[in-house]
Amino acid sequence: MLTGHRTWVFDQKPVIISTGTVGGPFEAKGALANDFDLLHSDLWLKQDSYEKAHKVLVEEASQKAIEKAGLQKEQVQFFLGGDLINQMTPTSFACRTLGTPYLGLFGACSTSMEGLALGAYLVNTKGANYLLTGASSHNTAVEKQFRYPTEYGGQKPPTAQWTVTGAGVALLSDSGEGPRVTSATIGRVIDMGMTDPFNMGGAMAPAAVDTIEAHLTERNLDPSYYDLIVTGDLGHIGREVSLDLFKKHGTPIREEQYQDCGLMIYREGQPVLSGASGPGCSATVVYGHLLNRMKKGEFKRILVVATGALLSPLSFQQGETIPCIAHAVSIEYGGE
Amino acid sequence: MLTGHRTWVFDQKPVIISTGTVGGPFEAKGALANDFDLLHSDLWLKQDSYEKAHKVLVEEASQKAIEKAGLQKEQVQFFLGGDLINQMTPTSFACRTLGTPYLGLFGACSTSMEGLALGAYLVNTKGANYLLTGASSHNTAVEKQFRYPTEYGGQKPPTAQWTVTGAGVALLSDSGEGPRVTSATIGRVIDMGMTDPFNMGGAMAPAAVDTIEAHLTERNLDPSYYDLIVTGDLGHIGREVSLDLFKKHGTPIREEQYQDCGLMIYREGQPVLSGASGPGCSATVVYGHLLNRMKKGEFKRILVVATGALLSPLSFQQGETIPCIAHAVSIEYGGE
Repeated sequence: MLTGHRTWVFDQKPVIISTGTVGGPFEAKGALANDFDLLHSDLWLKQDSYEKAHKVLVEEASQKAIEKAGLQKEQVQFFLGGDLINQMTPTSFACRTLGTPYLGLFGACSTSMEGLALGAYLVNTKGANYLLTGASSHNTAVEKQFRYPTEYGGQKPPTAQWTVTGAGVALLSDSGEGPRVTSATIGRVIDMGMTDPFNMGGAMAPAAVDTIEAHLTERNLDPSYYDLIVTGDLGHIGREVSLDLFKKHGTPIREEQYQDCGLMIYREGQPVLSGASGPGCSATVVYGHLLNRMKKGEFKRILVVATGALLSPLSFQQGETIPCIAHAVSIEYGGE
Repeated sequence: MLTGHRTWVFDQKPVIISTGTVGGPFEAKGALANDFDLLHSDLWLKQDSYEKAHKVLVEEASQKAIEKAGLQKEQVQFFLGGDLINQMTPTSFACRTLGTPYLGLFGACSTSMEGLALGAYLVNTKGANYLLTGASSHNTAVEKQFRYPTEYGGQKPPTAQWTVTGAGVALLSDSGEGPRVTSATIGRVIDMGMTDPFNMGGAMAPAAVDTIEAHLTERNLDPSYYDLIVTGDLGHIGREVSLDLFKKHGTPIREEQYQDCGLMIYREGQPVLSGASGPGCSATVVYGHLLNRMKKGEFKRILVVATGALLSPLSFQQGETIPCIAHAVSIEYGGE
């Protein structure tokens, strides 16, 4: 099960039997609109606060996944997941609605793969028959909390990223049809001393590189094993930084093979500066778009590396640098 | 492994080979001072913010546990844990210092047992040889964030509780000597419509009752199986509410057998109103005081039920009720 120091290999290959992905109006205009189960035309989702709207994203994505699998919510044993809002109320409140036993996870934008790693682990070892795992974010809820009220019209530098409004959830089972989760590598906290919260991608890149290299070493794999190695939300700058690091370390990852969810979700021309971010970014892109492409036969093996910046507005104000983390999970479909 | 819907039985009985508990000045004057590894005489721990002091609590408790086990920190594979501060920076920043692969957990004051449940699960199924799990809180960091700056001298009602300054960490292994983790039941989010953040104990009591009753049913145990059933931080009022509920449901839990960490840690006369609270409460009381009593032979089997209130200052301001959760873990030592 344990391979090396921090990699788990899932011999039972838990199955992603269904997923649910919900997005907002900006995602509806994005490049991957067709891969969402549900898109909302306004940010409020008929709620009276952005945080409540955020909660509804999680509820709807979970309901979609349960419905598509033909299950009842009472059959789902656990929900593993989280978000970026203080004390994670959107996810916790959604679990109140669902009624599912709940394991709250916090890994900032790495939460999607923290949840898939732990969820697959539980299913692999017969700790659950069915469980849900997911992550989410809401653009204006996050902006309000981390930066300024958007109404202020504060300027952002070109290194900044755009927080996705969306929730992505996967329903895992020990049997059934669908893409299979085959291994996971858990990240360490890496801090290269960067302090600019408007350049998260650059700060997170070394954490992504650390986890990817640990994964390849501990599983004794060549990067070519994967058709795609996809990071969560490094954006343009973080992607460049990490490609430079791979080159420096002699890790043979080809540029075409190395993509970023934050660079996929929006269209050219949408004002997203260095790309998308937020826990909902990798969750919706992987559980929607990428699994759809796997089902079409475009990829047989992918490694998803969700990256998270573990700062808070207060830690930034107190002059702290930005500690980052990345968790990697491999998903395979088709082939032998 | 899975018994019933949400209970895991650990057939390998992972061992708590060592623990680390660190407290602040108020805990040093408390009833359990002798059970802490380290007590600080002031709240700042030589740092320039309470949040940084909070981080040091986690670092020191982890270092103590590693040292007492005679290990090097490089041998520890994972840290599973969290705290109450926005985006959990104290725990994440402590993991930056430790360098250990990190799985961030959020369950408010239930985090201690969420971590012990998942940690024991990983060790039980050979997903780790050594791992750390823990939870922590810092009185003034939490007061500042959740209520008012303490300098305002705001009045509190007698239902309010006092947040513990402390970190409690356990080092788990698949072999060695020490108390053994034998099972865990994961909580659902329960919300009885209470809205008063100064009466958390009352709000959390139904969640504790739900998890305890699920645990007994799914493991098919009579409450008398346990020498002690101990909740995290229900305080006087929450304990009374839960005893009433047990009576109403016909669950035969004796009053003497049912205790609360929040009612143990301080001395009579310390101004803690309805009792202690905070993720550090159950973590320090269980990993210090209660395991010491188990080692002295006072208890052979205990069930620890850590309770958490999943609110945020914002959710309260938005008129939301308080969703609560409780996770239960059984620990056994000695006997057959």
